[in-house]
Amino acid sequence: MLLILRDLFRGVRRFSQLEEDLGIAKNLLASRLTKLVAADIVSKVPYQDRPVRQEYFLTQKGRDLSPSLVALMGWGDRWYNDGTPPTLLVHSECGTPLKQITQCPSCNDSLDPAEIRSRPGPGASVGS
Amino acid sequence: MLLILRDLFRGVRRFSQLEEDLGIAKNLLASRLTKLVAADIVSKVPYQDRPVRQEYFLTQKGRDLSPSLVALMGWGDRWYNDGTPPTLLVHSECGTPLKQITQCPSCNDSLDPAEIRSRPGPGASVGS
Repeated sequence: MLLILRDLFRGVRRFSQLEEDLGIAKNLLASRLTKLVAADIVSKVPYQDRPVRQEYFLTQKGRDLSPSLVALMGWGDRWYNDGTPPTLLVHSECGTPLKQITQCPSCNDSLDPAEIRSRPGPGASVGS
Repeated sequence: MLLILRDLFRGVRRFSQLEEDLGIAKNLLASRLTKLVAADIVSKVPYQDRPVRQEYFLTQKGRDLSPSLVALMGWGDRWYNDGTPPTLLVHSECGTPLKQITQCPSCNDSLDPAEIRSRPGPGASVGS
């Protein structure tokens, strides 16, 4: 699932390209794409009529998964790739490897997990 | 899995508390904790001898999942909670809701997913 999303973020659009790039069985790829479409994370758009062929795109909800994927890639690089990433995520304009920061907008501090607390938000149900 | 991790980040330590808080079956909770321990994301430390009782802690590798969980929570709030989060993550010191930013350290810009590219990193295998 994560690798399909990563390919879609990179601009891979077609079933055959995804299949080749991921080395995944057709039926598995098809069922995962169906789930992603059902979850409104991916949309498909026909690009050919006979036979019908689709291209796959991330929806806004799908693109909004970007920070989660960036974070998981960073975690994988630190803990499974000895800190030497096989792939770097960079700013398209200048090529600099990006950083992901958890920040306090009031103090402007970059936060450590130990400095994060949780409290009920506006959507908390009464009494919970 | 995510909810167990979230509880551990919040400082829940004991099996019985996790069970009560998550409303999850004992055997399911036990098997998930075993997996998390095997993956070195959680460690268990006995706090009582007879009967043996364990407390569960996040390892460094587990704490390092914090940005991924923060990102996924934000995604869930935007897409499943109408943007009104039931729980806010805040800076422990000042109580301000935190922000997670993907940033270019060179341009100091906050990056949109469309401005992210990938390129081979130091760990890329030759020829790949």
